[in-house]
Amino acid sequence: MKDLDAFRRWLAGINDLMNAMSVLNWDARVTMPPGGGETRARQLGTLAEVIRERFSSDTTHRLLDAAEKEVATLPDDAYKVRELRQAREALGVLARVPPELSAELVRLGSVAQPIWAEAKANKDFVRFAPSLEKMVSLTRELAEAIGYDAHPYDALLKQYEPGMTAAGLNTLFTELRGSLLPLLKRIQGSPARAPTHIFDQTFPKALQRAFALNIAEQFGFDPNRGRVDESHHPFEISFTRNDVRMTTRYNERYLPGAIFGLFHETGHALYEQNVDPSLTRTVLATDLLGMYAVGGTSFGLHESQSRLWENMVGRSLTFWQNHFGALQATFPDQLSGVDAETFYHAVNDVKPSLIRVEADEVTYNLHIMLRTELELGLMDGTIAVRELPEVWNAKMQDYLGLTPPDDSAGVLQDIHWSHGHIGTFPTYTLGNVMAAQFLEAAKAQVPGLTASLKAADYAPLREWLTENLYRHGRAYTAAELLRRSTGGTLDAGPFTSYLNDKYEALYPER
Amino acid sequence: MKDLDAFRRWLAGINDLMNAMSVLNWDARVTMPPGGGETRARQLGTLAEVIRERFSSDTTHRLLDAAEKEVATLPDDAYKVRELRQAREALGVLARVPPELSAELVRLGSVAQPIWAEAKANKDFVRFAPSLEKMVSLTRELAEAIGYDAHPYDALLKQYEPGMTAAGLNTLFTELRGSLLPLLKRIQGSPARAPTHIFDQTFPKALQRAFALNIAEQFGFDPNRGRVDESHHPFEISFTRNDVRMTTRYNERYLPGAIFGLFHETGHALYEQNVDPSLTRTVLATDLLGMYAVGGTSFGLHESQSRLWENMVGRSLTFWQNHFGALQATFPDQLSGVDAETFYHAVNDVKPSLIRVEADEVTYNLHIMLRTELELGLMDGTIAVRELPEVWNAKMQDYLGLTPPDDSAGVLQDIHWSHGHIGTFPTYTLGNVMAAQFLEAAKAQVPGLTASLKAADYAPLREWLTENLYRHGRAYTAAELLRRSTGGTLDAGPFTSYLNDKYEALYPER
Repeated sequence: MKDLDAFRRWLAGINDLMNAMSVLNWDARVTMPPGGGETRARQLGTLAEVIRERFSSDTTHRLLDAAEKEVATLPDDAYKVRELRQAREALGVLARVPPELSAELVRLGSVAQPIWAEAKANKDFVRFAPSLEKMVSLTRELAEAIGYDAHPYDALLKQYEPGMTAAGLNTLFTELRGSLLPLLKRIQGSPARAPTHIFDQTFPKALQRAFALNIAEQFGFDPNRGRVDESHHPFEISFTRNDVRMTTRYNERYLPGAIFGLFHETGHALYEQNVDPSLTRTVLATDLLGMYAVGGTSFGLHESQSRLWENMVGRSLTFWQNHFGALQATFPDQLSGVDAETFYHAVNDVKPSLIRVEADEVTYNLHIMLRTELELGLMDGTIAVRELPEVWNAKMQDYLGLTPPDDSAGVLQDIHWSHGHIGTFPTYTLGNVMAAQFLEAAKAQVPGLTASLKAADYAPLREWLTENLYRHGRAYTAAELLRRSTGGTLDAGPFTSYLNDKYEALYPER
Repeated sequence: MKDLDAFRRWLAGINDLMNAMSVLNWDARVTMPPGGGETRARQLGTLAEVIRERFSSDTTHRLLDAAEKEVATLPDDAYKVRELRQAREALGVLARVPPELSAELVRLGSVAQPIWAEAKANKDFVRFAPSLEKMVSLTRELAEAIGYDAHPYDALLKQYEPGMTAAGLNTLFTELRGSLLPLLKRIQGSPARAPTHIFDQTFPKALQRAFALNIAEQFGFDPNRGRVDESHHPFEISFTRNDVRMTTRYNERYLPGAIFGLFHETGHALYEQNVDPSLTRTVLATDLLGMYAVGGTSFGLHESQSRLWENMVGRSLTFWQNHFGALQATFPDQLSGVDAETFYHAVNDVKPSLIRVEADEVTYNLHIMLRTELELGLMDGTIAVRELPEVWNAKMQDYLGLTPPDDSAGVLQDIHWSHGHIGTFPTYTLGNVMAAQFLEAAKAQVPGLTASLKAADYAPLREWLTENLYRHGRAYTAAELLRRSTGGTLDAGPFTSYLNDKYEALYPER
């Protein structure tokens, strides 16, 4: 297929340039000295311009036209069909979104971010409101340009979670809400309390790092094709499957932060490191709409892997029965007299709180629902920006029984909207829901999986995930991967069962 | 000047892309996991292709034609004239060098490097000879393509040291040889011995780093616009003046390595950090022939700054009289009973050795002469590749009175030729010679400069260097900067006087 090969060589160069941008972004967040920011932004801007120019060039169109003819008779689920279709769709969106609108969104994102930071520092939503109004208005223009059938939010979801819709989220969230609120009520009624006082000690950073990195490698992280650094906001980023970087943040006065943070990023990293090598530098390892190189198929599917490894594996009783001994050996003074079961409860403390990033597995999804409902309202015009604090606080009371003392602990807490990221919050909950579906399917399909987890052997689980999800890169949507691997569709059932089983045991009724 | 501005905007993007390449190269040498090498090479290859394509495009020619008309009446030494002239010259070379030849040189460089490494490990020049023959042959083709008046080596020097020629090097080296050989003989006849036994101890890495970094900042390195890391081969690289990276290598069993290594890189870094901000992202901070972004005007001038700060400042008696106390406070156990004068002699041990990178200030230049004479012979055909070991060993005996036990300690010791870098060795000695000229001129022109150095105040020296050299970026050649700042031309005199004065005092006659 010489036309397909020619198309691939051209796209490989575009993927290279996107990976170069990712290296520059990683460096900016991890190693760059403060003075380098302004010129780094220029370098990133030029790269983005070159990428956009190359991808929308006549060359791309000509090579794609020719390659499409070669694959015309292949089945719909062939990788070759998928890569050309994704390129065609991305070219369509690129043609529909005016370059001025894209540029204006980027510009506003960089201008609005410091305004948000200042508003947050001053607990003053009114300072941020005009920027957010502009951002919402531009994002609605973007949605119109991308196009949608039912709800403008659907257009935004195309960028982050192809195939998902506002209607689908409403259905899922209604079901989830029906389970989570009663579960939370039951937990709050239980006399059990998580023994979190064991964290009120100093845990030296180097030892935290050694323990967490060892577990990451036991999960399957390959340090020959990746590394771990520190940054203020932990993240994972890949420059092809051969170079996958994670960061974490160490707090010597709060042990769980870095440990579970690194387990979380390890889930993302395992996904990227296990994309099939044949997809390297192809469309199936490239987010052509988002214009960056990545192996995972959607935000939600990526998040399903970080949460599966962080929570369903890493916060399980089995895990701590296996590894608490090593943790205790790492911190003999701090953890003498603590046992695995006590530690397990301490890292699974459920308590409504105001701040999303500090939330536990049960309440986390209520934080997400609240934000998603606000985003839906902003996009369809049923909520105005100026009403946000009031609506936020009312929902906070409904879902978690709390009222923020000010907007910094409320509507101003997240950076996302200031950057123009509207439509990503729900992917966190989609990740939780899908993670439970995948784990249930893996247990049903792999004989002895539960036993291997009990023996701290993570290979069978990782191999099932690789075979069913990771290796396919971006060839299939999350919905397709669910169908192929579980036989079903998106379903809150396994996740709510998982939560009910786990937390009913931890929080028995009085 | 709207045409000049348009040309500058276009070139700024090219500079951005070259800086992006430098970030990827830095990362590859400092942080990249081993598995990332293959895809990183692809990313660098694509960036190089995009840069070459952009620079040689019709757009560049059109914008340059228009801009040249705008500056036609400006004086010859105006920055605007210089930047357009350099772009024009680079386009000329690019047009004369066949792209296949450039590609073949890059390809051979990556193939020949591991062959050289294997040959070196096996002490077997014969394994490397065929690759080197091919490299020499391609480099002679390159010289013909670039063009020269008298000697093919002149064409290579255009890339690294514009304005320098084989004839100029011969004159300089003859003079140097006439001074260095008698000085070395006198030193070898002296009963004095450097007390190097004080290094036979362990000096913890973290403390070495703290001391050296503190000195780098006293010299004027701005950590807000740069950082220091570790790498196997120390180097300096800049991504504009706002982000200048240095690396060093710590050997706990050999204190001088990291300290003087970092002083050396600090000299390079001070040059880059002090290029005038108005030159950022312009041709005058871009090596258009070498296709990388850099503020310094030539290899030799860059090296003059690393050697000035490392040797003429950092290895001076005055320096150690000022800073030995701090070093002793850093290593109280290891350095108790040692005084500044003793330490000064220990770090200025002169002794002929086989290995260039371990050589002292006196013998170093003899290593360089040897290599340069070989390169000249390879390029004009008077020396054949197969004769190299024999010629090397004969010259080694002539200059240093030593014969390598094998080719690994002889002709195979340097990586340069395997990468295709023929023509860079002499720039190291040019750096030494010019450094002494600049220091002499600064002392003559700045009242109280010697007193300020005695008071460990490095600002007056750095400011003179900034005013006379650094700020101009690549606007003037090394010869022009010499003339503008010292009123003279390249002259070995100040360097040989410096060496004679310093080492006659350290090594008195019997």
